[in-house]
Amino acid sequence: MRYVLGLDGGGSKLLCVIADETGRMIGSSLAGPTNSSYNTPEEIELSITSVISEILANHNIARQDVSIVYGALPADGQLSISTITKNLHDGVKVNLCGEYVLSLFGAIQEDYGAVVQAGTGSFAHIRTPKTEITVGGWGPILGDEGSGYYIGKNALMACVRMADELGIFTILQERILTYCKQVKMRDLCTLIYATPSNKQSTLIASLCPIVGKAAAEGDKVAIDILEDAAEMLFMQASSVLKLPDVEARFPLTVAGGVWKTNPLLFNCFSTKIKQLFPQIDLRYPLFEPVIGGVLLGLRDLGFPVKAKIEELKHHFSAYSISADLFQ
Amino acid sequence: MRYVLGLDGGGSKLLCVIADETGRMIGSSLAGPTNSSYNTPEEIELSITSVISEILANHNIARQDVSIVYGALPADGQLSISTITKNLHDGVKVNLCGEYVLSLFGAIQEDYGAVVQAGTGSFAHIRTPKTEITVGGWGPILGDEGSGYYIGKNALMACVRMADELGIFTILQERILTYCKQVKMRDLCTLIYATPSNKQSTLIASLCPIVGKAAAEGDKVAIDILEDAAEMLFMQASSVLKLPDVEARFPLTVAGGVWKTNPLLFNCFSTKIKQLFPQIDLRYPLFEPVIGGVLLGLRDLGFPVKAKIEELKHHFSAYSISADLFQ
Repeated sequence: MRYVLGLDGGGSKLLCVIADETGRMIGSSLAGPTNSSYNTPEEIELSITSVISEILANHNIARQDVSIVYGALPADGQLSISTITKNLHDGVKVNLCGEYVLSLFGAIQEDYGAVVQAGTGSFAHIRTPKTEITVGGWGPILGDEGSGYYIGKNALMACVRMADELGIFTILQERILTYCKQVKMRDLCTLIYATPSNKQSTLIASLCPIVGKAAAEGDKVAIDILEDAAEMLFMQASSVLKLPDVEARFPLTVAGGVWKTNPLLFNCFSTKIKQLFPQIDLRYPLFEPVIGGVLLGLRDLGFPVKAKIEELKHHFSAYSISADLFQ
Repeated sequence: MRYVLGLDGGGSKLLCVIADETGRMIGSSLAGPTNSSYNTPEEIELSITSVISEILANHNIARQDVSIVYGALPADGQLSISTITKNLHDGVKVNLCGEYVLSLFGAIQEDYGAVVQAGTGSFAHIRTPKTEITVGGWGPILGDEGSGYYIGKNALMACVRMADELGIFTILQERILTYCKQVKMRDLCTLIYATPSNKQSTLIASLCPIVGKAAAEGDKVAIDILEDAAEMLFMQASSVLKLPDVEARFPLTVAGGVWKTNPLLFNCFSTKIKQLFPQIDLRYPLFEPVIGGVLLGLRDLGFPVKAKIEELKHHFSAYSISADLFQ
C-alpha cells in the first residue's frame, strides 16, 4: 500500500495527516512550530522529524511506503526537504508549496481560483492559468486587515476608547478582561506589552471568537468591527478579482480560523462579493489546508479526487469544515 | 553658586540640562536610554551616572553645588533616586515626576493645564487643582493614535495599499523606500519585522517628517494621514477638557517631536479646539520638557520664572521651540 502525507506548518504548530492510496485517512499527528522567523533550524528539524516519526509509528507504516508529501511550511525550503527525505526515503516526492495552494485545493479541489485567507494574518491569493498574485499578507504592523489579529486589536482599541470615555459602551471590555484574567484595561495593556513579541499576535488574535460571540448577541461595537473586517477582506478579494483573466464562474473561496468563529464576517463578505462580482463562483470551503496536501498527493497517485468527493468528505470528516458555519 | 538639574529620559536617550541659580543655562549632556521595560537596572544606573558625571566634569561644577533635580524617567523610582543621590550628595532634593509635569511647565510654565503629547507615542494629560487624568498612552498596539508611530504606520499602510493596487498613488512610497534604502515594499516589510521589537516603534515613528514634507508638497494621502492624526489628538484632548472643573481660559498646550515636523497637524488640531472649545486658552509651547524640570528647580530656589520669561527664552534658546512651527 502506498501512502501520502500532508503537512501544514505555522508559527504555532505543524500538523501532519496521512492517507492511503484508496483515499482513506489513516491518522494525524502534531508537533511544534516551523517558522524560520522565530524558530531555529534545529527546532524546525525537530518538529518535522517528530511529526513524521510519530505518525508512522502510531499506524505501523514503513517509511518506504510513503510515496508523496505535499507541505506548506514557513521555513527554509532546503532544510525542510532534506529533513522530510531523511525521515522517509530518498525516493519520496516532496512538494513544498505556498499555503494558498493547499488552502485552495483543500477548500474547493481546484488548481485555479482565488482564496481569501483570514487566520492570525490575512491575504488574498489568486492563481489563474496565466498568473499568480498575492495581495495583503503584510503582517500585523503594516497590514493583515481583516485578520484575527486585526479583529482582536480593534476589539482592544474599542475597550480602551471606552476606558478613556472616547467610545461607546461595549460588552467586549468585560468579556476580554475576564478571558485575560485582568481587572483593568491598564493591567491588560501591561500584560500585552510584556508578552514576547512572537506571542503577541497569537494572544491578540485569540480574542477573535469573543468578538464573534458579542456580535451574535447584538453588541454594536463587535458588529461594527466584524463588518469593517469583512470590508477589508472584500477589498483584498476585489483587488485580485480585478485581474483581466478572471472569467465568469471563476471560483473564490475562503480559508483560516477567523471565518469559522465569525459567521457575520462571511455573511457580510459574501453579500458584497455577490453584489459587486456577481459572475464569481463563491464556494464554501470543504476541508482544512492540510487535507489540500493529502488530496494533491492522492491525485498524483491517480486517485479521482473530484469524482469521489462524497467518499472523501466521509473519510476526512475530522478536517472538514461545516457548511453550517457559513449559512 | 547653586545649580539645578533637569533630566528627561526615555526609550532612546537621557537628556540632562543644568542651570545656575541666576537662571542661566550652563550646559547639557546626553546618555543612553532609561526605560525599565527595555533596559536592565545596570544600564539605567549607567545612563544616569554618566549623564551627571559628564555635565559636572564638563563645566567644572562640584557635586555639592547641585541643590535640586527634577526628572521624568520611565524607570524604577527607587533606583533612579538612589543613583541620582549617589552621583550628587545626600542633601540634594530629587523630584521625580510624570513626563507631563515637565512638558506642561516647560511649555507654558503652569502647574495646572492640559497637554497633548505626540512623540513616538501619544496621550493627553490634564491637571487641575482637583484632579489629574491621562487619556491615551496605550502604546503602539492598543492606542497611541495621532503619535509619530501612528503617522508612520499609516504612511506605510498607504504604501502597501498602493503596492496592492488598493489605494491611490502617493509620493510617500518612493520617499519612504529611499529613506529606508529599499527597492520594494516587500523588502521594507521584511526589514521592519526583522527589526528588534524595541526599535520598531522608533523606526516607524522616524518616518513622520517624511509625511509632513509630502503633505506640505500637496500629497493627498499624506494630508489625509495628518488630518486624521490631528483628529485623533483632538479626541484625546476633548476627553480631558470635558472635566467639570475645566473653567474658562484653562490652558492647553502641546508637546513632543511630532508637532514640530508637521505644521499641518497643529493647524488642524488648533482649528478644531477653537471651534469646539472656544473658552480654552491654547498656547504654543515655549520649551522642551527638560527645561520644564530646570524651571521648576529654579522656581523652588526662589527665581521668578514667569517674570523673567524673556530672559529665560534667551538663555535656553537651544531648547526653545520656535513659534513659527505652529503658525
